[in-house]
Amino acid sequence: MFMSRQSGQGKLVFLISSSRAGMNGGGPKKLVDLLEDPLPGVGTYEDFNTIDWVREKSKDRDRHREITNKSRQSTVALLRSLSDAFSGWLLMLLVGLMAGALAGGIDIAAHWLTDLKGGVCLIGFWFNHEHCCWTSNETTFQERDRCPQWQSWAELIVGNSEGAFAYIVNYLMYIFWALLFAFLAVILVRAFAPYACGSGIPEIKTILSGFIIRGYLGKWTLITKTITLVLAVSSGLSLGKEGPLVHVACCCANILCHLFTKYRKNEAKRREVLSAAAAVGVSVAFGAPIGGVLFSLEEVSYYFPLKTLWRSFFAALVAAFTLRSINPFGNSRLVLFYVEFHAPWHLIELAPFILLGIFGGLWGALFIRANIAWCRRRKTTRLGHYPVIEVLVVAALTALIAYPNSYTRMSGSELISELFNDCSLLDSSQLCGYKQVSNSLADRPAGEGLYTALWQLALALIFKMLITVITFGMKVPSGLFIPSMAVGAIAGRLLGVGMEQLAYYNHDWLIFRGWCSPGADCITPGLYAMVGAAACLGGVTRMTVSLVVIMFELTGGLEYIVPLMAATMTSKWVADAFGREGIYEAHIRLNGYPFLEAKEEFEHSSLAVDVMRPRRGDPALAVLTQDSMTVEEVETVVDSTHYSGFPVVVSQESQRLVGFVLRRDLLISIDNARKRQDGVVSTSQVVFTEHAPTQPPEAPPPLRLRGIMDLSPFTVTDHTPMDITVDIFRKLGLRQCLVTHNGRLLGIITKKDILKHMAQIANRDPDSILFN
Amino acid sequence: MFMSRQSGQGKLVFLISSSRAGMNGGGPKKLVDLLEDPLPGVGTYEDFNTIDWVREKSKDRDRHREITNKSRQSTVALLRSLSDAFSGWLLMLLVGLMAGALAGGIDIAAHWLTDLKGGVCLIGFWFNHEHCCWTSNETTFQERDRCPQWQSWAELIVGNSEGAFAYIVNYLMYIFWALLFAFLAVILVRAFAPYACGSGIPEIKTILSGFIIRGYLGKWTLITKTITLVLAVSSGLSLGKEGPLVHVACCCANILCHLFTKYRKNEAKRREVLSAAAAVGVSVAFGAPIGGVLFSLEEVSYYFPLKTLWRSFFAALVAAFTLRSINPFGNSRLVLFYVEFHAPWHLIELAPFILLGIFGGLWGALFIRANIAWCRRRKTTRLGHYPVIEVLVVAALTALIAYPNSYTRMSGSELISELFNDCSLLDSSQLCGYKQVSNSLADRPAGEGLYTALWQLALALIFKMLITVITFGMKVPSGLFIPSMAVGAIAGRLLGVGMEQLAYYNHDWLIFRGWCSPGADCITPGLYAMVGAAACLGGVTRMTVSLVVIMFELTGGLEYIVPLMAATMTSKWVADAFGREGIYEAHIRLNGYPFLEAKEEFEHSSLAVDVMRPRRGDPALAVLTQDSMTVEEVETVVDSTHYSGFPVVVSQESQRLVGFVLRRDLLISIDNARKRQDGVVSTSQVVFTEHAPTQPPEAPPPLRLRGIMDLSPFTVTDHTPMDITVDIFRKLGLRQCLVTHNGRLLGIITKKDILKHMAQIANRDPDSILFN
Repeated sequence: MFMSRQSGQGKLVFLISSSRAGMNGGGPKKLVDLLEDPLPGVGTYEDFNTIDWVREKSKDRDRHREITNKSRQSTVALLRSLSDAFSGWLLMLLVGLMAGALAGGIDIAAHWLTDLKGGVCLIGFWFNHEHCCWTSNETTFQERDRCPQWQSWAELIVGNSEGAFAYIVNYLMYIFWALLFAFLAVILVRAFAPYACGSGIPEIKTILSGFIIRGYLGKWTLITKTITLVLAVSSGLSLGKEGPLVHVACCCANILCHLFTKYRKNEAKRREVLSAAAAVGVSVAFGAPIGGVLFSLEEVSYYFPLKTLWRSFFAALVAAFTLRSINPFGNSRLVLFYVEFHAPWHLIELAPFILLGIFGGLWGALFIRANIAWCRRRKTTRLGHYPVIEVLVVAALTALIAYPNSYTRMSGSELISELFNDCSLLDSSQLCGYKQVSNSLADRPAGEGLYTALWQLALALIFKMLITVITFGMKVPSGLFIPSMAVGAIAGRLLGVGMEQLAYYNHDWLIFRGWCSPGADCITPGLYAMVGAAACLGGVTRMTVSLVVIMFELTGGLEYIVPLMAATMTSKWVADAFGREGIYEAHIRLNGYPFLEAKEEFEHSSLAVDVMRPRRGDPALAVLTQDSMTVEEVETVVDSTHYSGFPVVVSQESQRLVGFVLRRDLLISIDNARKRQDGVVSTSQVVFTEHAPTQPPEAPPPLRLRGIMDLSPFTVTDHTPMDITVDIFRKLGLRQCLVTHNGRLLGIITKKDILKHMAQIANRDPDSILFN
Repeated sequence: MFMSRQSGQGKLVFLISSSRAGMNGGGPKKLVDLLEDPLPGVGTYEDFNTIDWVREKSKDRDRHREITNKSRQSTVALLRSLSDAFSGWLLMLLVGLMAGALAGGIDIAAHWLTDLKGGVCLIGFWFNHEHCCWTSNETTFQERDRCPQWQSWAELIVGNSEGAFAYIVNYLMYIFWALLFAFLAVILVRAFAPYACGSGIPEIKTILSGFIIRGYLGKWTLITKTITLVLAVSSGLSLGKEGPLVHVACCCANILCHLFTKYRKNEAKRREVLSAAAAVGVSVAFGAPIGGVLFSLEEVSYYFPLKTLWRSFFAALVAAFTLRSINPFGNSRLVLFYVEFHAPWHLIELAPFILLGIFGGLWGALFIRANIAWCRRRKTTRLGHYPVIEVLVVAALTALIAYPNSYTRMSGSELISELFNDCSLLDSSQLCGYKQVSNSLADRPAGEGLYTALWQLALALIFKMLITVITFGMKVPSGLFIPSMAVGAIAGRLLGVGMEQLAYYNHDWLIFRGWCSPGADCITPGLYAMVGAAACLGGVTRMTVSLVVIMFELTGGLEYIVPLMAATMTSKWVADAFGREGIYEAHIRLNGYPFLEAKEEFEHSSLAVDVMRPRRGDPALAVLTQDSMTVEEVETVVDSTHYSGFPVVVSQESQRLVGFVLRRDLLISIDNARKRQDGVVSTSQVVFTEHAPTQPPEAPPPLRLRGIMDLSPFTVTDHTPMDITVDIFRKLGLRQCLVTHNGRLLGIITKKDILKHMAQIANRDPDSILFN
């Protein structure tokens, strides 16, 4: 960018192969303007490095300015400029279509494979249970489970569906399939794309903040993650597909970016698209486009300009409607859990809702601690060497324990659907096993069936809580939304039924008087389940607004926002009291990614001079001078250090700052000059000034490198408080910043220095920050 | 802030009255740490100045750090720290309650006064039409207009409600009341709070971006605006209450801020609260809390951290539910226009929806041009000297033309409600005057009544379009949402009915075949009205996501998001093609407020050196040196210039930058030192260094001013492109930035310089930027 800017100022750059410019042997004084075609590699980044947002955005503005200027000249250029302006929208459309289609495919495949664990369709093994029985005419909705075309494995193998033996056969087949799916998932991940494991959200957060992880959003990751996600979900492990869908959507976006130069070549622009893709991911996961956009804004994105807001919204809508036209849930509904409640809630019920919030917060804090401890153990002990065995053991354990309990046997989203459901009069599910008192929807006393269900739910709660801790972080794609919500929904439903029975048997209590008279439908256990699910998810991820909006989109009623709000806020406060980090931030820290959290304020009162390098006692900062070093001297400085950039000063004595040059650009340029330019040798002078100084006639031609120098490096004074410095880094997306004192260069602060300093303040190991 | 920071570093400040420190006659070498109590005035701003966000936020962090540190020492301090942490939430609760209550009051009062124009309630003049007839038992809903307790003015005065004479009496009374209300509104605004006029959103945008307009959000403005808003709305002028409600909510927030030191003393923190209040305003205006938050984020706010997102959401919810419990619409609905559509839309209908988008965009662009031209005329010609007469003339004109047409006689929100409404079978309104064909909701041929309605609507459309242009900007509170939506809704309804009839009579056309067979309910004119309203509002304000979300909250159905999205996007693109500014930005520019638009990219390729002062040929930059100037010399520099701050350099020769000191702080400190400190005279040396230089013993004691100096002024190099500089100003909220070249101070760029430069680029008069 700085190159093309100088071209605008008439200062031309000499560092491009003269043969490509068609000027063989052109002397060093002849400057060539080939800025359209900079040296390959200059201005790009290495893997596991942080991008410079300012530079990238400026590069894009230059490109845009050029197109706009050209567009005044000819019609073709005007059309190009228009197509450039609309390419962002086109890209969004494509991302929405592709992500929506993939999500639909994943839903259908996962549904089929999940059903395959229980039995097979005789008229075609590729039908899932529901489709299989649709073709059968005689079955009503209630008899769905017993249509003749669908046979359980016991029926198929031993010809009998009743009795202990058949049960054992089904049990074993269930475990077999679960193990097979889990095995395939982990093997595929290991073989094709190691990045496809986990939820992907911590890494996407890091990438969006400006980090480069090559291949993380590539086509192999996309293919592998899509397939293994289906397998992992179908294996019955306690994991969800919502987080991984965000990763899948981001992969789609990243791949589609390659179709448009504007996005392919600019890391900052590409991250805008990825932010929108994160919204798309949640939009297709829950069928909640507005919630998805807010999720991207609140939870994932780093830089979220208004333009991205509009585009994310557009992409999220396209994706949601693509998914709906595929109709994987078979109900024409956009949302994953469609709920309709009939009774309003009462102010007194805020007490149990807040109780659920506290439960959610405690569970969230506990889960994060336990999960991080387990993952750290996996990283540091021999456990980490056997990921396949780990997955198989956990899958076997899950299947073994889950099968006997119908609430753990069903998939997570089915379970949540059932728990959210408000019992209608005809509902035959166990959870609605009330004693029939009158023919109304009024609160009824619990019956046999409901008591059994409550016991099973309590056991399921304990099981889910334990197994999720060891499942999240395994080497298969694993989302956290559904398991967290399941825990909360179970707890909520239990409390809801408890409240209902309490109110039924104690109408006369003061707290129930007036609003919960006999025969009234005053407590909705499904609403409690919903509030509990929101509270637990909030405790784990620390989302607030986006969570409430997602839940609002599920119900469509503004009525229920207040309970949800109360629970998620309580949950966040309670969980924050135990530790400020959500699960994603905790995993980012565990992996040592260089992520500068935008939510936390920097509270310490240190100054820039305390953080910058060199520290007191260190050797002086490695600097280049603008016109008094030879190529050899520069190379010595570069080789003797590992810094990724060097300040350029007027002279070693004055230490007055001129600019900043990146190691990578410097090496590429010197290398190129040596190869192609006549006369550039080790004793050539390296010149960063505008005009080369006069030299003795016998001296070799100088190497002019002003073109690769950043003429506007960011500086702060040594007295700048670190809170301001951190703010500057965050808001501008800097990679490094120079420190001056009374106009003299004193040192440098990089993003890594800041992260190390913050780790030190928090009494953590500063070396846990791994990358640049 | 910089003062307290230095205290942390052990560098104490000497500029506080020694008598207050209890150290009478303490010599200048004795340093006093009275940082809790800085000189009154130091660190505050003058009216019509821009705040320094970095300084304000740093000040808040210092305060917070102090409280956190103290909280470890005692339980009382811990409780103070907790109450400090929760004070933001408490404030939000109060803002929500107060704004919700006020909005409810405004609704009720406006409803009553509007009805008063038509008649009066005999059982109590304070009842509005609806309430008056509620108490009457015999009336059914249809007979609402004819209950005996409610008498039109003709009935009351001449004892007759039929015939031409009665009509004329009613007509005259209508005009009389309209003029009376309009007169009261404009007189009250002029007498008590000139700031209460207009919609307030342009000014609030400017204030949120960091500008200070004292009294704009004060208690007098609040009281006056609340009362005059009711009067203006009731007078029948073509204006709405939605924009002014945002102003009212912001006034509430600003006044309530005074209860909490944290917000009273910090301009940046207060602006966070104001951002949330803007969300509250829209939330109560439409009953759309999520849309309100997005409106604040997209349209109004400048600095919107995540914390503000959560709090705005909370406040918006509280306000919406407060309003609902007041229940001014009498229907227990949260939303202003409750709509329920029965039929889905078809893909082909996107064509008319996009057509509405184009209409909305054209109308938006036209409206902005016409309105700005009119307002400029008002500013520059004698028209502006007679605001009262202007209001009275427009009110008379409006009443005169509006009365005969029932669609212009009813209030804007009633009109929109009626246009959004989907005709049910029993609907007796003129708009539903279809010929009864069968007993279903299917499309029907238009009847007599509908044709009359269409004519009236067409006339109403023309009238609304013309009158709104001259109404918006008069010296009464006037919102733009309702008039814009009304224009769009009329256009939409007309197109919708047209489409419906087209489809009814031409089932066999290719475009209708398949989805619009005879007897089907395929076209919903109410949906067209809604889409049209969104398109026109979008064209005028250039809102997109927030507008769609507000509309979504009104209907509650995700189904209709796509038409709304298509129309608003088209509308924005079409309107942007004629000019990038929305109405609020246009008014900001008209008034010359120093507002740095965050949405527009800075496209020009100038460098910092082109924008900074001094320009080439100007006298050199006025600087202070760190230890070689006397009090008198400093005063000469300050008096001979009008700059609001001065850089401090090491020496005039080196021009190496040390810090930056604000004119206001400098004057206050020198003044204070002269008054209270023994020995500080005109020949005293002014010292900005840490340690005073050695002086001859007979010299007067030096005046040490390091405490008021900003030790970390922002600098950019002269080669920094202006797009980056503008980005830094926007993102960090800077007020000024120093420009260096190779470590030497070269010049200064202020926000005003940037705005002037941008005006110059756009070929506008750079002197149109009025304030600092």
